[in-house]
Amino acid sequence: MNSKRSTEIASLGEFGLIDRLTARLKQRRETTLMAAGDDAAVIDLGTEEAMLLSIDMLTEGIDFDLSYFPLKHLGYKAIVRGVNDILAMNAHPEQVVVALGISAKISVEALDELYEGMERACEELGVDLVGGDTTASMNGLVITVTVTGRAKKEEIVYRSGAKEHDLICITSNLGAAYMGLHLLEREKRVLKDIANPEPKFAGYEYLLERYLKPRARVNVLEALREEGIHPTSMIDLSDGLASDLRQICRSSKCGARIYLERIPIARQTTELAEEMHIDPVIAALNGGEDHELLFTVPLDKQEAVMRLGLVDVIGHITREENGVILVTPDGEGIALKAQAFDR
Amino acid sequence: MNSKRSTEIASLGEFGLIDRLTARLKQRRETTLMAAGDDAAVIDLGTEEAMLLSIDMLTEGIDFDLSYFPLKHLGYKAIVRGVNDILAMNAHPEQVVVALGISAKISVEALDELYEGMERACEELGVDLVGGDTTASMNGLVITVTVTGRAKKEEIVYRSGAKEHDLICITSNLGAAYMGLHLLEREKRVLKDIANPEPKFAGYEYLLERYLKPRARVNVLEALREEGIHPTSMIDLSDGLASDLRQICRSSKCGARIYLERIPIARQTTELAEEMHIDPVIAALNGGEDHELLFTVPLDKQEAVMRLGLVDVIGHITREENGVILVTPDGEGIALKAQAFDR
Repeated sequence: MNSKRSTEIASLGEFGLIDRLTARLKQRRETTLMAAGDDAAVIDLGTEEAMLLSIDMLTEGIDFDLSYFPLKHLGYKAIVRGVNDILAMNAHPEQVVVALGISAKISVEALDELYEGMERACEELGVDLVGGDTTASMNGLVITVTVTGRAKKEEIVYRSGAKEHDLICITSNLGAAYMGLHLLEREKRVLKDIANPEPKFAGYEYLLERYLKPRARVNVLEALREEGIHPTSMIDLSDGLASDLRQICRSSKCGARIYLERIPIARQTTELAEEMHIDPVIAALNGGEDHELLFTVPLDKQEAVMRLGLVDVIGHITREENGVILVTPDGEGIALKAQAFDR
Repeated sequence: MNSKRSTEIASLGEFGLIDRLTARLKQRRETTLMAAGDDAAVIDLGTEEAMLLSIDMLTEGIDFDLSYFPLKHLGYKAIVRGVNDILAMNAHPEQVVVALGISAKISVEALDELYEGMERACEELGVDLVGGDTTASMNGLVITVTVTGRAKKEEIVYRSGAKEHDLICITSNLGAAYMGLHLLEREKRVLKDIANPEPKFAGYEYLLERYLKPRARVNVLEALREEGIHPTSMIDLSDGLASDLRQICRSSKCGARIYLERIPIARQTTELAEEMHIDPVIAALNGGEDHELLFTVPLDKQEAVMRLGLVDVIGHITREENGVILVTPDGEGIALKAQAFDR
């Protein structure tokens, strides 16, 4: 490889890598309605419907640690992550294909467990696992999941539709998966040299579940449809609220104002964060892997969206020049920055 | 992980792993026309057309060695491999999504080269790269390519349609990519400790190209269409003629008889094989990565298919009970076996 002028990827900054890679891509097919820049690509079917297409890769040592991640859960999570990209476009997930890079230490029984988890998720979400590819891997397990979805074109929600005064909504609560990961890492560290380790998870089971077995928020999308609430923009919360909100603002050419005290954080998240000397707000803003939905709705839907009981309104969309601002309880506004490298 | 009764994947035999993993999958969507068991999945679009979906993973150290594989070629090859799965169903490739696992040693410039190669292939093949995912990788570069394609349902060619007396056809020649790989590996070994290595590739450039930059056989498919020749079965030659022919026979519940002296082998392939004390026929039968098309046509198309000048007829389909047989020049029949683990 050419190393005479090598640039580290991290030096490109938050959106630098994706921008650089996608800038060169040319679209030549009429059926390509939406390429890079959203949770999924959108392909014209020549009818009133479009097909959605997403891809998501998980690598061992970065996205999961097999010393504490049960393979059944890993399979489940891999499918949910892929499906979430389709849901975040307000589309119906349908088919899944999976590619596996299998290291020598993976036994047939281990693969069975992985597939059991994948099939469980497919069953719950009503999608079909329709094929795949297996290759050997020199260095750890790799899982890539591609999901197709379908939607009427007019129903698809992009990242780019947020308008000034729209309300910013999120499902469930944030930072729990991040603290679940920290708990697993702590116990692994503490029990490293102990023969029969007994990790202390009591009281924090919810955090583990949020990290190891995230749920797809199908119910929220159904409730929104039933109430006739059409989000103006939406994104899967995978990189953390700060980063993902900035994605929406960037695509929609707008700013945002969110209020710290409105960000929902579960009791267990706060408790463990304090125990571990982590600011729970940092966990909620930057933790990532929440796999909740972040979306915007028109201001006049405020009452309807609150009535669902499934969603928290944490702020509103402003003009682009106002930036993306977190308002503290004492009224101070802090510009939100996100972490650098897109995981 | 559970290691109390671990079974090595290789012990499952040739089709064992895929069979075991796919046996548990249930299909619940009406739109799923064809799941696992072919080069691509087939999805109903509710019109006369169907969408095809393939996935293919390449891992560093197994599928490529960055010490001699130029990144531009690697990007090109990754796309061609994915597109070939769609072509092997007689469908038109349309969109591509790519997931990358990026190790720390990969610079921005290296990624640029990889993308340049991918974009080059997309341009030549008329497909759109419409999105992707990047994640960090602890251990080497991983590339997963998903390709969509489209075809009228009646035009799709499966592995399962071969009938007794059909002719077995292949494009171009076999074993060249395998010998190209051997040449690269030899020069790497020989020049390991030399400061300014000058590998000896003279006379074998064709083999390197076949390994480093395989071509998609779009022209053959177009020629077949123009002549009104509809293959009864087809597969992408990726695992080697022996294995891939057995796949067709297995899916079509038939046997086959191919003739050794009819298997096209390029002069450079034979020369290097002899120089390296490898039987060129073994390279052609088991080498893999040929990325040519193996297909069958009805017997009455013999003249038409020969007239194309693009295809060699190497044998014919027989009844299942006759097995998959290679006939040597002295008339002896040898049962063809394939290698174990599906790469």
